Amino acid sequence: MVTLNDIAAKLGISKSTVSKGLNNASDVSEELRQRILETAAELGYSGRRAPKKLCIFIENMGYQDPNQFGYDLVAGFQEMAMSEGWVVDVVPLTEKYQRGTSYQQFMSHRGLRGAFVLGFSLLDPWMEEFRTAPIPTVLYDNCIKENPCMASVSCNNAGGLSAAVRHLYGLGHRRIGLLCGPLESYVLKERYSAYCGALKECGLPVDEDLIGMGYYVAESTRKYLPKLIEAGATAILCSDDSRAVAAYTECYDRRLNIPKDVSILGFDDQPIAAYMTPPLTTVRQDRLALGKCGYYALSCLLNGVAIDSIHLRAPLIVRGSTGPARGQDAVPSTQLKEEPLDAIGM
Amino acid sequence: MVTLNDIAAKLGISKSTVSKGLNNASDVSEELRQRILETAAELGYSGRRAPKKLCIFIENMGYQDPNQFGYDLVAGFQEMAMSEGWVVDVVPLTEKYQRGTSYQQFMSHRGLRGAFVLGFSLLDPWMEEFRTAPIPTVLYDNCIKENPCMASVSCNNAGGLSAAVRHLYGLGHRRIGLLCGPLESYVLKERYSAYCGALKECGLPVDEDLIGMGYYVAESTRKYLPKLIEAGATAILCSDDSRAVAAYTECYDRRLNIPKDVSILGFDDQPIAAYMTPPLTTVRQDRLALGKCGYYALSCLLNGVAIDSIHLRAPLIVRGSTGPARGQDAVPSTQLKEEPLDAIGM
Repeated sequence: MVTLNDIAAKLGISKSTVSKGLNNASDVSEELRQRILETAAELGYSGRRAPKKLCIFIENMGYQDPNQFGYDLVAGFQEMAMSEGWVVDVVPLTEKYQRGTSYQQFMSHRGLRGAFVLGFSLLDPWMEEFRTAPIPTVLYDNCIKENPCMASVSCNNAGGLSAAVRHLYGLGHRRIGLLCGPLESYVLKERYSAYCGALKECGLPVDEDLIGMGYYVAESTRKYLPKLIEAGATAILCSDDSRAVAAYTECYDRRLNIPKDVSILGFDDQPIAAYMTPPLTTVRQDRLALGKCGYYALSCLLNGVAIDSIHLRAPLIVRGSTGPARGQDAVPSTQLKEEPLDAIGM
Repeated sequence: MVTLNDIAAKLGISKSTVSKGLNNASDVSEELRQRILETAAELGYSGRRAPKKLCIFIENMGYQDPNQFGYDLVAGFQEMAMSEGWVVDVVPLTEKYQRGTSYQQFMSHRGLRGAFVLGFSLLDPWMEEFRTAPIPTVLYDNCIKENPCMASVSCNNAGGLSAAVRHLYGLGHRRIGLLCGPLESYVLKERYSAYCGALKECGLPVDEDLIGMGYYVAESTRKYLPKLIEAGATAILCSDDSRAVAAYTECYDRRLNIPKDVSILGFDDQPIAAYMTPPLTTVRQDRLALGKCGYYALSCLLNGVAIDSIHLRAPLIVRGSTGPARGQDAVPSTQLKEEPLDAIGM
């Protein structure tokens, strides 16, 4: 069994310094502490005080403020993990960093036993490594089919999108547009194909003139929203609430009334959705629960249970931004008589 | 708060008899004990000794012997639930019983807070009630889309079937048959459409002459296996291991060598699969883990987390019953030279 003496000998420092480093004493520099931790991990030191450590990797997503998308995902995971004695590191990542360091190196150097991965795109360098890495890893809104060490957690994207399309169809909409992020993301691909599938189920064609995609939310919304309206869209589905916020701005600038001229529908139910004018109809992702399920899936993998995926329900929350379609007019008219809304208050 | 006195008053018996009934004392008749328990549940008695109770409903499935399919499903669920202080009733059911008693009645009369449902077909009377019942319920290999109180647990049936078809395709098989139970079952529908989807992915047509379905395993295998062979099948996928056992018997009777004349592939990895001659290539369902996930999903629902589904991986276990396809001969020949097997030992 590896002891403090082994770590001290390897680093050429005293045993008491090693002990201080492992216990976060203030008189050991951060740099030395890191070297001590890495050496401990390298040698396989599992002393009483060596913490059981997990990691959350996060990219393309804010998490430090309760209004940011990642906040509850991180909080839910941490709550569950810490109650079972884990220490959880939260590590924001960039593509560049991933290109310089391998996933396995990162994990083993820091003695991390598993990870929860948030916000990765399909182009992230580590996504390739995930296909074979023998490290228990749970991906939010991503899927690695080949590797039994990997599990997925997400809401039922297809179910949520399908409910959204059926809701609009029930309100008489037959020209339903889509504003969507780029398909370099697993979850956006999933939502895009769910949109196409739901249209088909309703007997509606998939019309490329009704679809606008782009990475930058405000720019691509400015570019595509007018095109969708011109192509006859009476309702617009947004692949996320941020895009719906941008769509509201565009509608305001163009004097389009929501929902009289156009219905707008989001995805996520971020905190702001209920306070928009009008309140946004959207598909809810329970992010706290998703974070908790992330920990559960990881603890299954750590215990040898080859979980594949966990899905949460994604209920449609109907508010004021969706209403009956305005006849068959392709161009919005402010002369249309007011029609009653079908919104269910929330 | 409801007390023992309230229950006693309602039943017109003494408080000490109520207490004895709740504590399973031997000098209280079973009939009276049931009346006491039901009255306690009806009044909402939650005394220190009133057990937290869950239920496993089981149909079309043995579970009392370790070799039976349901044994580990029940054991995994019970292990997790009991460690958290639940009492778990195991209730075998029939369709007839369901027609006479409603699900909600059954649950409330016995003070049951949630259920794990195994082996139900789509025709079971309670399946209709599940669409609206406000009771936390987890279904194994079934799916109720509309009701947020319901969750599903299953292995990744589509992934397992797809791996099976690709394995056979890689061995040169182009005529891949299917022996399957009837499509009155959600999971068999899922496996059937996964079979069709996987064939299409390999560029193979779905040929009805290569498909045989029937409820009774031995009878339908006897009827369809020769037809499939006549139609040119060089490999036969079975929707479950029991059907593969029946297929072995038919092959033996017809002097067909497995895998030289025909490859046979199962689904489940039941305990017997590894001991068949030759050992059966099959898709594994980890039933103990499925049972544990069943409890986890139920505890999520009981805590207000609207879990939709949990899937486990369904790995293909390659053993001796699958081998290279025998050329393009439609009729098996014992004159074929021996070909090396591609089996990976397990």
